[in-house]
Amino acid sequence: MASWANNVRAVLLDVSGVLYDSGGSGGGSAIQGSVDAVNRIRQAGLKLRFCTNESQATRSHFAQKLQRFGFSISKEEVTAPGPAATRLMKEQGLRPHLLVHDDLLPEFESIETSDPNCVLIGDAAENFSYQNVNRAFQVLINLQKPVLISLGKGRYYKETDGLKLDVGAYMKALEYACDIKAEVVGKPSPNFFLSALEEMGAKPEEAVMIGDDIVNDIGGAQSCGIRAVLVRTGKYRPSDEKHPEVTADGYVDNLAHAVDILLASRASNQ
Amino acid sequence: MASWANNVRAVLLDVSGVLYDSGGSGGGSAIQGSVDAVNRIRQAGLKLRFCTNESQATRSHFAQKLQRFGFSISKEEVTAPGPAATRLMKEQGLRPHLLVHDDLLPEFESIETSDPNCVLIGDAAENFSYQNVNRAFQVLINLQKPVLISLGKGRYYKETDGLKLDVGAYMKALEYACDIKAEVVGKPSPNFFLSALEEMGAKPEEAVMIGDDIVNDIGGAQSCGIRAVLVRTGKYRPSDEKHPEVTADGYVDNLAHAVDILLASRASNQ
Repeated sequence: MASWANNVRAVLLDVSGVLYDSGGSGGGSAIQGSVDAVNRIRQAGLKLRFCTNESQATRSHFAQKLQRFGFSISKEEVTAPGPAATRLMKEQGLRPHLLVHDDLLPEFESIETSDPNCVLIGDAAENFSYQNVNRAFQVLINLQKPVLISLGKGRYYKETDGLKLDVGAYMKALEYACDIKAEVVGKPSPNFFLSALEEMGAKPEEAVMIGDDIVNDIGGAQSCGIRAVLVRTGKYRPSDEKHPEVTADGYVDNLAHAVDILLASRASNQ
Repeated sequence: MASWANNVRAVLLDVSGVLYDSGGSGGGSAIQGSVDAVNRIRQAGLKLRFCTNESQATRSHFAQKLQRFGFSISKEEVTAPGPAATRLMKEQGLRPHLLVHDDLLPEFESIETSDPNCVLIGDAAENFSYQNVNRAFQVLINLQKPVLISLGKGRYYKETDGLKLDVGAYMKALEYACDIKAEVVGKPSPNFFLSALEEMGAKPEEAVMIGDDIVNDIGGAQSCGIRAVLVRTGKYRPSDEKHPEVTADGYVDNLAHAVDILLASRASNQ
């Protein structure tokens, strides 16, 4: 029996590449066996969170997309950079100037944005106009101590019509212009994983993260004391199993395979 | 007699902060004594080049602006990053995808731009839309060996309605997204100064650079074996005279003062 599966009470699931593959006319499709795997996690009474770095939509829209693929998922079960940033800003008394996708704006309705004392950027896509980026720069450079919060640090991602610049590129532009370092919210930031645990009421040693990104999912979770298992779907490449810095606690063919092992472990303990 | 002025046959002049101060309704105004100083350099039979990093306009437009301030200057006497980049691209067989200001486009009319094998960025201002920056990124990431040429690496500059992001910020965004380093054309790049010398038919030891930027003007020129004198106008700050890395060959109050010393040195040698 794989030791990573022992005494697990809470499961953190990466989404893209674990639950579904993006692309195609419908925006993607479920990975074989993963819809059923999510149902089996629920039926076993395990706690569950969906952990994503996507920042182009609110959690509601994100959950709706997954429901269309057949997944049982509610908005409240999604841990995303937007709410993590909201929590951070509330804790630190930060009032952001927002440079984000229009569809993400509702996520920040509870935050005071007048007289901004920081800048928050996400994957704003078309909203990354010169005027908007310059405006964010002007807010930063006029602050006594410029604070830049970034919803991830991805370089680019793939859409059906080609590769697109991700938030990390614009984060770097603003970092250079203002000679500062951004605070990155989202995987692999420890705060992101700890938030997901807190929302579930689980301890690190009770949880397992399942993802397809050896650095952001596996390395990030392990740095918080959470066991982490790499799936051989999504962006997985065989070289990930010989990564120079990160060794997963387990390697599985896909999410269904991971759940088989998890449930077998529970059965043997009961 | 100041030794930096001995046996000078060629003068390289920085423009903004040496000839004129930018800003205000007319786009700026000549610095006291500098119009006359340029005339005196000509009357003394010294070779002369105007060396600027500005990349928002062709040399023609740039010369016309200075003519309005009263300067005797022709387009052919301006050394700017655009022509330096053109030379570089012709030498290396590079066909650029251009991400530059519309007013700079005529500078590249002699360059083949179909089937691009590099990206050239300048201070494109409003042309830095998400679509345009993303298109430049896509060209780069699809090249076997991405080549990015940048007309300078400035962080930002000041306009009458506030600070504006300069080309360096977008250079950093593309560098990060593609995991590459850009080739910077313009001061302080040695090629830039050597081009100016070549255009004048002068050797480094025959020339002097006069500028207000201790790093880009003074340090850049000195790295090519050109003497360099700092003026106490423009962006000059007293701390520049105690710079940890660069010591100018001379410090003068303004361009007129520099020309006084230059001409006195010539008189004593004749």
